[in-house]
Amino acid sequence: MKTKSPVYKPINLNEKFLKFKELWSPRIIAQMNDYHFKLVKFQGDFIWHSHPETDETFIVVQGELRIDFRDGAVILKSGELFVVPKGKEHKPCAKQECQIMLVEPIGTVNTGNSVSAERTAKDQWI
Amino acid sequence: MKTKSPVYKPINLNEKFLKFKELWSPRIIAQMNDYHFKLVKFQGDFIWHSHPETDETFIVVQGELRIDFRDGAVILKSGELFVVPKGKEHKPCAKQECQIMLVEPIGTVNTGNSVSAERTAKDQWI
Repeated sequence: MKTKSPVYKPINLNEKFLKFKELWSPRIIAQMNDYHFKLVKFQGDFIWHSHPETDETFIVVQGELRIDFRDGAVILKSGELFVVPKGKEHKPCAKQECQIMLVEPIGTVNTGNSVSAERTAKDQWI
Repeated sequence: MKTKSPVYKPINLNEKFLKFKELWSPRIIAQMNDYHFKLVKFQGDFIWHSHPETDETFIVVQGELRIDFRDGAVILKSGELFVVPKGKEHKPCAKQECQIMLVEPIGTVNTGNSVSAERTAKDQWI
């Protein structure tokens, strides 16, 4: 009896982005050790928050993202990344809808230490 | 006395890729917790190896990459990613030069468990 070979499939970011429309609502696309790769669409202003336990990586796949800090800001365009250090207060914002890939430990909550239940998203796989 | 605000700069992948030409020689561009983001250029065949301690993420920025496994293969194009599981033997190869971003724990050696000193690269920041 032959055993079937496993099928290895790449994860295509653009195809995954077509699968959801909701803003500020991260979707998990891959796991590496105890980290998740997540896709998220931003438009408008998020809330100030920080992640006391972890750095957080933003990679812009399409569009433009600004991340405000209490003492400055960084503007990220397609093909650019930035690591927000652990504990640093930040506020993502985008004039136009942008497409972002996040890399962060499993269970990292989008609103971090903020108490905004309204903006807190439950991560889900797509 | 005014204190100077810090300058926050995005990391631009294309600009970083222009800074080196060597194949199979990862360059570190960012750190997130105890992980590194690395850029690498592949062309031709690498050697069979595995990383017994960690998963390894490949993200294709430009070109096309094939990763061979003992029981199959995956082909990745620009905008696609794949996580090679911990301990899984693999061999990256590329007909034409391709540009890859790797995400893996600090200190992960490009040749993994292989004994090929010739192909083992010393990671360096750019």
